[in-house]
Amino acid sequence: MTKIVIIGGVAGGASAAARARRLSEDAQIIMFERGPFVSFANCGLPYHIGGDIKERGNLLLQTPESFLARFNVDVRVMNEVLRINREEKTITVRNLLDQSEYTESYDFLLLSPGAGPVVPPIPGLDNPLTHSLRNIPDMDKIIQTINTNQVDHATVVGGGFIGLEMMEAFHQLGIKTTLLEMADQVMTPVDREMAGFAHAEIKAKGIDLRLSTALKSVEFKPTTSLASMDSGQAEHQHVNGELELTLSNGDTLTTDILIMAIGVRPETKLASEAGLQIGELGGIYTNDYMQTSDPSIYAVGDAIEEKDFVTGKQTLVPLAGPANRQGRMAADNMLGRKETYQGTQGTAICKIFDLAVASTGKNEKQLKREGVEYEKVYVHTASHASYYPGAEVVSFKMLFDPKSGKIFGAQAVGKDGIDKRIDVMAVAQRAGMTVEQLQHLELTYAPPFGSAKDVINQAAFVANNLIKGDSTVIHFDEIDNLTEDQLLLDVRNPGELKNGHLPGAVNIPVDQLRQRMNELPKDKEIVIYCQVGLRGNVAYRQLVNNGYKARNLLGGYRTYLFAKA
Amino acid sequence: MTKIVIIGGVAGGASAAARARRLSEDAQIIMFERGPFVSFANCGLPYHIGGDIKERGNLLLQTPESFLARFNVDVRVMNEVLRINREEKTITVRNLLDQSEYTESYDFLLLSPGAGPVVPPIPGLDNPLTHSLRNIPDMDKIIQTINTNQVDHATVVGGGFIGLEMMEAFHQLGIKTTLLEMADQVMTPVDREMAGFAHAEIKAKGIDLRLSTALKSVEFKPTTSLASMDSGQAEHQHVNGELELTLSNGDTLTTDILIMAIGVRPETKLASEAGLQIGELGGIYTNDYMQTSDPSIYAVGDAIEEKDFVTGKQTLVPLAGPANRQGRMAADNMLGRKETYQGTQGTAICKIFDLAVASTGKNEKQLKREGVEYEKVYVHTASHASYYPGAEVVSFKMLFDPKSGKIFGAQAVGKDGIDKRIDVMAVAQRAGMTVEQLQHLELTYAPPFGSAKDVINQAAFVANNLIKGDSTVIHFDEIDNLTEDQLLLDVRNPGELKNGHLPGAVNIPVDQLRQRMNELPKDKEIVIYCQVGLRGNVAYRQLVNNGYKARNLLGGYRTYLFAKA
Repeated sequence: MTKIVIIGGVAGGASAAARARRLSEDAQIIMFERGPFVSFANCGLPYHIGGDIKERGNLLLQTPESFLARFNVDVRVMNEVLRINREEKTITVRNLLDQSEYTESYDFLLLSPGAGPVVPPIPGLDNPLTHSLRNIPDMDKIIQTINTNQVDHATVVGGGFIGLEMMEAFHQLGIKTTLLEMADQVMTPVDREMAGFAHAEIKAKGIDLRLSTALKSVEFKPTTSLASMDSGQAEHQHVNGELELTLSNGDTLTTDILIMAIGVRPETKLASEAGLQIGELGGIYTNDYMQTSDPSIYAVGDAIEEKDFVTGKQTLVPLAGPANRQGRMAADNMLGRKETYQGTQGTAICKIFDLAVASTGKNEKQLKREGVEYEKVYVHTASHASYYPGAEVVSFKMLFDPKSGKIFGAQAVGKDGIDKRIDVMAVAQRAGMTVEQLQHLELTYAPPFGSAKDVINQAAFVANNLIKGDSTVIHFDEIDNLTEDQLLLDVRNPGELKNGHLPGAVNIPVDQLRQRMNELPKDKEIVIYCQVGLRGNVAYRQLVNNGYKARNLLGGYRTYLFAKA
Repeated sequence: MTKIVIIGGVAGGASAAARARRLSEDAQIIMFERGPFVSFANCGLPYHIGGDIKERGNLLLQTPESFLARFNVDVRVMNEVLRINREEKTITVRNLLDQSEYTESYDFLLLSPGAGPVVPPIPGLDNPLTHSLRNIPDMDKIIQTINTNQVDHATVVGGGFIGLEMMEAFHQLGIKTTLLEMADQVMTPVDREMAGFAHAEIKAKGIDLRLSTALKSVEFKPTTSLASMDSGQAEHQHVNGELELTLSNGDTLTTDILIMAIGVRPETKLASEAGLQIGELGGIYTNDYMQTSDPSIYAVGDAIEEKDFVTGKQTLVPLAGPANRQGRMAADNMLGRKETYQGTQGTAICKIFDLAVASTGKNEKQLKREGVEYEKVYVHTASHASYYPGAEVVSFKMLFDPKSGKIFGAQAVGKDGIDKRIDVMAVAQRAGMTVEQLQHLELTYAPPFGSAKDVINQAAFVANNLIKGDSTVIHFDEIDNLTEDQLLLDVRNPGELKNGHLPGAVNIPVDQLRQRMNELPKDKEIVIYCQVGLRGNVAYRQLVNNGYKARNLLGGYRTYLFAKA
């Protein structure tokens, strides 16, 4: 009889427990969770705060009782594992209800402790109106603060997934919201120019978005004291009052609630104290079988370092999908199988009001940092046949190896069909497809769902034109630095220029270009742009085939414009 | 200077013309179209009739004038090509406006004539209230018949894409509608049991759906005669009246308009009269370069036979996506490149009221017909995290090689996220992924968009359990033929049985199974089912690990139930 002990009862741990039981009726399975809940929907927490998910109970996917009934798993909530005694293959546990301590032996141990919010050393953060959001008790406290503190204004620090979701939750509750982000963009998985679409959406919804702005200090100004109805820790007291925030630019801000969401850090205390290998990035080391440096101890989820699918290097990817699959795989391997983890692409998506922002693989910042030679294309095209109602622009960026055509990564932003396009790219990348092969993809098409040439086909056409030398391109970030030897040509219709154009551009609509080509100088490089890059390419081909030097702005004016948003 | 002549100005022809011009300013490009329109949105026609697409003009994507201005293409509408004179490399053309004839030479000829509606030899079809729908004039005539004939009841013959879309269009206009389909299912790209979901939806919307029913004869009963405001052919007269239909089962039906949509047939007249090779399936033969048996003549789109991606055999796939990509590729090759077509999977989707029905690759009927050994799995799971509002069930079927894990095909039906799942499968199949590899797919996940274990991951888990012998399954179509040695076990909660269950089943909820297992006989095979197959698998593993013989019904009661719809 194999005895499996699992530390952490959410995504990875819960998946492992269920899988282990399906594989073996005999195994003894014990799952420890120091909090009061197992298998809760942590990705749903902001949506309950914002009111999209009405019932708190819907977040509780399983209970200790349901786990026992269905999977015969001994779930011990409010039991904190204090240490791992590797020589004896035991753990020491504290029952948080009565503070008693005991040991439990294991044949295999699975570490699924997750990652905790990073709390920066900012003076004054320790106050009753400042929260992070990791679990149900955190959520309950935030809701309680909102309800008891008459919150008119909220401040969220950090423009990652949780920060953005909390920003939206506050907005839905009618609370004025400030979002502080130290970097020059939100949603770091995408590049700055793609984040511009998110910035525009965030501002359009009335959020006070402050980029390149850090929180420097916090002063708590209490008004009255209230008895707490706290569901979690007894020491947390809800107190009315407000916070005076001082920002890195010297500004001050008065707010009623503060959410710290600047990132997470792997929970490695147990592992490192037990002498397990910790990786350079600060996560628990695991091999492809999800084994730590101790073969009897496995680890999964947000706490571990895993292999990056694209680079093969170690990476930290705190996402639910990988955690779930790793948990399942760890159970397989603890019970005698040999399943190997295939690496993480970091496929991710975030809803930001009406937009979705998604990505897979490496972004341009990462490729630059790693010194990888890459090329990129931008496409903005309709989510489905534009003549059918409800089509929205998909803004799409693809990064690839200009020599081999290998896909490095993709990013997409828009109001419809964003998840689909990034899923397609995630599969293509994982399958090792090249951008050449993407041209041939045969995706679902009917007017309500797609286009005969899908976004991905179009991006592949553009990439292959570039690889084959059929087009010479210029990117949005080069436009502000043109030389005297270059001439800007706007090939849109005059009516389109009213909504913005590049200074100094000559305007010849593409459909008049053959007749008016002699207005253009042959000794200068013609830098062509249109709205999204498609007509620009038609004009580019005309000019080049007529002996002109030219470049086409990929992604057109739209990419240039939103890069500044 | 290369002279390219294109016959047919819609999807494939128009794509070829535009691509050819982008590659070469010098080429002379002439496009012939015997109808009055080029590059119209033929997939949008039913949606204009039904009112979703308000403006008729939105269907006209390009005009001869716009083609000339942008691409310097000489577009000749209302010019019918009468014959190809291969020895002289000319075509003979009739100008339909003045009936004059002339010849035009070519260096390369592209045939993109499309496919015409099959008109069966049914007595009485030739009447003014009977229509097919292929182009703008057809659409105009249907709209005119609706407007002038006070249509209260419509009959659509054929449950394919156009038939289903016309059915929905009539329903949207408040017209009572009968759909006749000779086969026992609509949407033949999916298998019968998956079509059941569509049947249920169609009936729920009040459509008079008659499967396994053919149209035998038609009698036109005119009432009054009207002057025609016809926009197309002058000989078409709109006349008030009704049609008396006689059906294969002897029933009769009175209707005000009849749409024949039983399928299309490649337009091969020009090609076969010119002695070009016609394939066994009746389409124009092409090689991988889209060349016909005459190297100067290329052909693309609905008129040709192309390579099936899965089987490598010849196939006829009249879909817009392949036509567009083939057109682009033919232009490449006419201008000296060597692009090869990679085969067609037949990826398709159809909106049927609130449902989407989609598929890629081979279906089970085709695999059976070809004698291919296959296995299949069914999954019914939420389109995104079920605790987030708006999740809908995705009903998913996957066909694969049980030995190699090769993906043969996939089908999906549901109200949300259907296009996405079939796109994922289309990419995975094209990339040559196995069902083993599908387990590792890392797809976008946030509660509004997906699940940490997506539909596709789950289907892959089920398939791999089956391949590895972790589960022994039974399929819905074996349930009605159980023997005395088998016992049906329903592991759902008693409350769920109220909405239907299998006769003779013993009910032990999965969460009570460990305690009540001794109620089950060890000498019989336990045939387990639940609602969708998931709890059934948990019960299956319990029973098998305790020494029972068991099978789990894949896809559960839901698959069984809708297979009969």
